[in-house]
Amino acid sequence: MKVAEKHFRTIWPDVRCKFVEIIDQTKLPFTFEVVRINNLEQMVSAIKTMQVRGAPLIGAAAAYGMALAMLQDDSDDYVQQIGQELMSTRPTAVNLQWAVNRMQTRLLAVKTLRNLTAWREAAAIAEEDVTQNQAIGQHGFELIKKLYKNKTFNILTHCNAGWLATVDFGTALAPIYTAHDAGLDIHVWVGETRPRNQGANLTAWELTQHGVPHTVITDNAGGHLMQQGKVDMVLVGADRVTSKGDVCNKIGTYLKALSAFDNNIPFYAAVPSPTIDRTISNAREIEIEHRHSDEVAFMQGLAENNKEQKIRVIPADSKAANPAFDVTPARLVTGIVTEQGVFEPQHLLTLI
Amino acid sequence: MKVAEKHFRTIWPDVRCKFVEIIDQTKLPFTFEVVRINNLEQMVSAIKTMQVRGAPLIGAAAAYGMALAMLQDDSDDYVQQIGQELMSTRPTAVNLQWAVNRMQTRLLAVKTLRNLTAWREAAAIAEEDVTQNQAIGQHGFELIKKLYKNKTFNILTHCNAGWLATVDFGTALAPIYTAHDAGLDIHVWVGETRPRNQGANLTAWELTQHGVPHTVITDNAGGHLMQQGKVDMVLVGADRVTSKGDVCNKIGTYLKALSAFDNNIPFYAAVPSPTIDRTISNAREIEIEHRHSDEVAFMQGLAENNKEQKIRVIPADSKAANPAFDVTPARLVTGIVTEQGVFEPQHLLTLI
Repeated sequence: MKVAEKHFRTIWPDVRCKFVEIIDQTKLPFTFEVVRINNLEQMVSAIKTMQVRGAPLIGAAAAYGMALAMLQDDSDDYVQQIGQELMSTRPTAVNLQWAVNRMQTRLLAVKTLRNLTAWREAAAIAEEDVTQNQAIGQHGFELIKKLYKNKTFNILTHCNAGWLATVDFGTALAPIYTAHDAGLDIHVWVGETRPRNQGANLTAWELTQHGVPHTVITDNAGGHLMQQGKVDMVLVGADRVTSKGDVCNKIGTYLKALSAFDNNIPFYAAVPSPTIDRTISNAREIEIEHRHSDEVAFMQGLAENNKEQKIRVIPADSKAANPAFDVTPARLVTGIVTEQGVFEPQHLLTLI
Repeated sequence: MKVAEKHFRTIWPDVRCKFVEIIDQTKLPFTFEVVRINNLEQMVSAIKTMQVRGAPLIGAAAAYGMALAMLQDDSDDYVQQIGQELMSTRPTAVNLQWAVNRMQTRLLAVKTLRNLTAWREAAAIAEEDVTQNQAIGQHGFELIKKLYKNKTFNILTHCNAGWLATVDFGTALAPIYTAHDAGLDIHVWVGETRPRNQGANLTAWELTQHGVPHTVITDNAGGHLMQQGKVDMVLVGADRVTSKGDVCNKIGTYLKALSAFDNNIPFYAAVPSPTIDRTISNAREIEIEHRHSDEVAFMQGLAENNKEQKIRVIPADSKAANPAFDVTPARLVTGIVTEQGVFEPQHLLTLI
């Protein structure tokens, strides 16, 4: 999508396949910075520190990480070893495992030119993500059109499932961009998404760049807005969807889903098929990542001198806990928007 | 309650009734500062800027504001006028209206020594608040004892309904202090309570001062902890409770109540009887305060140089909305803990 009129993806390879470049998402919204990733270690670090984040983008980043690693060592053992290393960076998003497994299978099947195969397969994963997201945008747009009543249509989203969370175009925001570009009057309630504020930092920034009307709210405010009739649809992404349609997504999603259900507001998760984990039917089996408590205790933003500043926001003697995801049970989910169409949770397995 | 071993209330009059002193709650948790309030204008400002906040404390502060005003002018007209001015400072907490009405009725009933009457009545309101909160502490403690199973009892609270929200002792935190002091193993999940972070700033600080084990979490995390069986009770305060038991409290409370209900966890609001508004049965009649969007756009905390710093946390071009309260319908409320005992929402009107 466009950043100040120039088209960007979130990740792209050097034309000579020597390095990869990414947008450093820890710097947004106040600084737009492209960072060069030269080797596997740098990619592992970029994923862990969330310079790249969002389930589909993590998948593509891991694939490119493996391609970078093949420049050093393309042995079978190393292909296995780096797969383990990459999968341990973030446990919850299934796209990471999916991409690593796909890369490993592809690489171990060839004995020559493994390096070239790796770059090609990573590029294929990235391209497929973009194509899938465009299809999600179209299917979600049809959904919005059905509910649209020639007045402002208010969509509440949580965290960032925009183009920054993918290679391009986004999952939950794809239908929003499509509907906005088609001339529908769309307004987005952007939950700030504590503790890392991906809503306030990334979604608000994306929507601003594309000119989509939006308002940032605290995560606390979503329920009240729904009670007041100010939300027509809840649309989020996901890090993993079980075969039964339980949606594992950024912490706080479950609360929004409860509130949508309580107020008869449709709740949709938009995901490309690699986010669906057919191996898990019981959501309790999903490992929920617990991140460092400093993410709760400190907050980053722009000081008056226009410099980035980190401040402490809880007393020094208080502990903090930081579970990063929760699970919204399928009974609260109206549907899953995928590149193959919109599925009710119980019919998800009919998806090819 | 104690601050570094010395007993404090949140508000107290000068012994010669010339001024009032308050703890400036906008400076906590990093600076403990007592501020002198010399006249009505300063009290109005202290309430508006939330140097004093919390429904019961706002009531007492308004009463003392009227006492200060009587030092300037004790005419009938002025008593009416300042009542209007005080009531417009914060629309949602009913204690403010209750205290102003009580002061006006009392003052207009006397023709001499109105000044003296005002200080006495304000002191009576403050004393009653403390006594009521102690009784709430006792009734809530009985409730906890019934559910306690000789292992850590986890209570989730939202915002600050501790002694800082009252003249002393607190509402929702009163049972927690009582149970902790009685030797029960209590642990409190403290929701940070965006946008003003009264949980992270005030509740965490209070609990630290009193030595109550606690962990700060984002507002998003409450639902997940309940799903995981890590919450035994939700206990909050309220700014207004309708005659049918609907609970108007800090924005986000409704989401926690939905989650408690979904996970069979008891949800209690603890309030002194002045917080119950017998004139309203339909919660839609409650005016929900909308505060300045800068409270969402900026965050205050401690920078590395140990100085308070305000930082921007949303893009400059994004709007923000800031509704300050929501309403939890009575159907989600297990009970209301008052100074007269614990009432099911539908039996609230049997309270004297």
